[in-house]
Amino acid sequence: QISIERLMASVHELGAIGARDGGGVCRLALTDADKAGRDWFVKSLHALNCEVFIDAIGNIWGIRAGRTEDAPVMIGSHIDTVATGGLYDGALGVLAGLEVIAALNASETETDLPVAVAAFTNEEGARFAPDMMGSGVHQGALDLDEMLSTRATSGDALVGEELRRIDYAGQDLPITPSAYLELHIEQGPVLETEGLKIGAVTGVQGIHWTEFTVRGQTNHAGTTPMSLRRDAGQVGFAIARLADEMAQELGEPQVATVGVFEVSPCLVNVVPDRARLTVDMRNTDGDILTSATDRLLSQAQQIAEAAECTLDIRPLARFAPVVFDDALVTRVETAAQNRQLPVKRMPSGAGHDAQMFAPNCPTAMIFVPSNKGLSHNINEHTDATDIEAGAQVLLDVVLDLTGG
Amino acid sequence: QISIERLMASVHELGAIGARDGGGVCRLALTDADKAGRDWFVKSLHALNCEVFIDAIGNIWGIRAGRTEDAPVMIGSHIDTVATGGLYDGALGVLAGLEVIAALNASETETDLPVAVAAFTNEEGARFAPDMMGSGVHQGALDLDEMLSTRATSGDALVGEELRRIDYAGQDLPITPSAYLELHIEQGPVLETEGLKIGAVTGVQGIHWTEFTVRGQTNHAGTTPMSLRRDAGQVGFAIARLADEMAQELGEPQVATVGVFEVSPCLVNVVPDRARLTVDMRNTDGDILTSATDRLLSQAQQIAEAAECTLDIRPLARFAPVVFDDALVTRVETAAQNRQLPVKRMPSGAGHDAQMFAPNCPTAMIFVPSNKGLSHNINEHTDATDIEAGAQVLLDVVLDLTGG
Ligand SMILES: NC(=O)NCCC(=O)O
Ligand SMILES: NC(=O)NCCC(=O)O
Repeated sequence: QISIERLMASVHELGAIGARDGGGVCRLALTDADKAGRDWFVKSLHALNCEVFIDAIGNIWGIRAGRTEDAPVMIGSHIDTVATGGLYDGALGVLAGLEVIAALNASETETDLPVAVAAFTNEEGARFAPDMMGSGVHQGALDLDEMLSTRATSGDALVGEELRRIDYAGQDLPITPSAYLELHIEQGPVLETEGLKIGAVTGVQGIHWTEFTVRGQTNHAGTTPMSLRRDAGQVGFAIARLADEMAQELGEPQVATVGVFEVSPCLVNVVPDRARLTVDMRNTDGDILTSATDRLLSQAQQIAEAAECTLDIRPLARFAPVVFDDALVTRVETAAQNRQLPVKRMPSGAGHDAQMFAPNCPTAMIFVPSNKGLSHNINEHTDATDIEAGAQVLLDVVLDLTGG
Repeated sequence: QISIERLMASVHELGAIGARDGGGVCRLALTDADKAGRDWFVKSLHALNCEVFIDAIGNIWGIRAGRTEDAPVMIGSHIDTVATGGLYDGALGVLAGLEVIAALNASETETDLPVAVAAFTNEEGARFAPDMMGSGVHQGALDLDEMLSTRATSGDALVGEELRRIDYAGQDLPITPSAYLELHIEQGPVLETEGLKIGAVTGVQGIHWTEFTVRGQTNHAGTTPMSLRRDAGQVGFAIARLADEMAQELGEPQVATVGVFEVSPCLVNVVPDRARLTVDMRNTDGDILTSATDRLLSQAQQIAEAAECTLDIRPLARFAPVVFDDALVTRVETAAQNRQLPVKRMPSGAGHDAQMFAPNCPTAMIFVPSNKGLSHNINEHTDATDIEAGAQVLLDVVLDLTGG
């Protein structure tokens, strides 16, 4: 049995680390706040008598021994957040993993297979792109050296240097779980709207992130006729509008987001000579997504050329849609039904560490409702009873898989 | 006679203060670099035996006595720059004023009227809006207390506090010149393109600056369908494009510039909940300008409402077009012709301190060519021979007006 009191206590303990004035959490990957969160997690794993490992990309693994030394059943997620994050995105999955182990310990349950709980480095991609960096490296989808030399989206920090600075640069850790499970808030409105308690996640949509850097010429806002300008800002604005219009035209489930936009020198009466923006495009259909990205890139090039500006295009993430293991998704669904929890199979709009494991071992995810569908927002919220239900389903599936 | 060697030496001396790595100058108003430039100017005035005054908004005035105590003929401009400025914008007018006094001193010329040289606070408006702040306050177009409590466009600095910090908060200085003259680089391509050496400036176009702050809701870029977003960034992009399209449609001389654009939280996978941008609109026709601004504001409001975002609109500057004194413009024209310098009457695209004096005393300006029309750009350049010609015309008109 899950103890919701113990689980909520740990939600609030970890949530206090990197808490923002005015609410929410800022625990950007590899910052001091992230280090403090990591230290708290490592201490909690030790307190539960787990063996603790840090791997080469800074993922933290805690393992509770089983009767055998076979591949563990793994529970994972992340404790980094965006700058305006809430208490639950990522943290909930890691803390539910701790709670599963605490519950097994409390009832002195032995399992055949070991149980592992992991917190992966930089799932959010907010400070360093791409997202799902730690799980991606561990599962071979991303290159370790390339990721260690990735520079922050703003500023000069490098992943490898930051890992050493906060003392979380470890060793290669070759391990393939027998199965991978992740509990996560939905981060969207579907479960709440439909009055459901559990989502049995069937897969994750494709994610393409692209950075555009436009270069033109600074000039005087009063003396330079429109026809003589090489306005990098306007080229950026046009690309940003194009991405939005393309998503509107393609219709659901296509989405496009311009989250980052900077101009320089950023002065009222100076035509900008530089603009930088990112476009995040997603679709469950990989072909539609790829052709949308191709079209965006070629039209952006045309817009820049027409304005006599140059354009650098840098792909920051290219993740194809992922389908989870049908049998394991069914186990999640059945576990929910066994507890009389209204459940449905559904795709995930957000990227998750689970998607990096899916090609290599049976993988599934459990969603719980998000109040008003809000996430990456300081008002992100999930009711404690919904959290309890999700954690209980997680424990049930873990016991089912480990022979507990 | 002007000494071009002495004048260019002072251009390079002042230009070294706030020099940027890689070229150009950053001497934003009321920064340490501006203070260093001011100190240099005050020292130079003392070396020329001028009386020096600092007024309540930090303008620096140097006065060379005449045979009478009548109202002085004034030469003015500014020494603040934008962040990516050149050596000449503003500085040239002040340094030419110093050179006029140096030339009078060297030839021991006495004038009937005193000659004043002034450097006005924050002409650029780059750090604090509006532009022409010092001259505007002195001439009563802007309110002193309101300007002293103006906050920086980025950051928290206040004009009044910065003036005290750099030790340039002086006293009221009621003075009305008998005439006002300003030498300035054209900052546009007209003189160079037409092979002319002197512009006899007939007036300045109207300038409207507006700040738009959009507020929406942060949300997750992957899980939030397009239809459920309240995307402050996209509202900002649409307003920015609209300003540009309106200027293109209205045709010359209408211009519109989006120089400042910021989104927050500025993360790849977060729908922005806040965008801030500025629009700088100008036209020689005050009625067309006013109706363009009205239209932009009301359409911006509609765009925000359609996206369920809120919009704050803050006018940062509203300057009507200004016409200079016809007789004084003719004196400039004649002085150029007397020196066989090809000259034409022309309006100014940029705002200038002169426009603040125009309603209160006979006012005119002298333009010299700008290489490739570049300004607010580190490659801003004017040939020394063209500077010499402009400064000589300035001296000729000053002698004409002062009875020297
Ligand atoms: N779950 C989650 O918010 N992941 C961040 C990666 C993304 O989907 O952008
Ligand atoms: N001359 C000049 O660059 N003035 C700055 C004010 C403006 O025109 O924006």
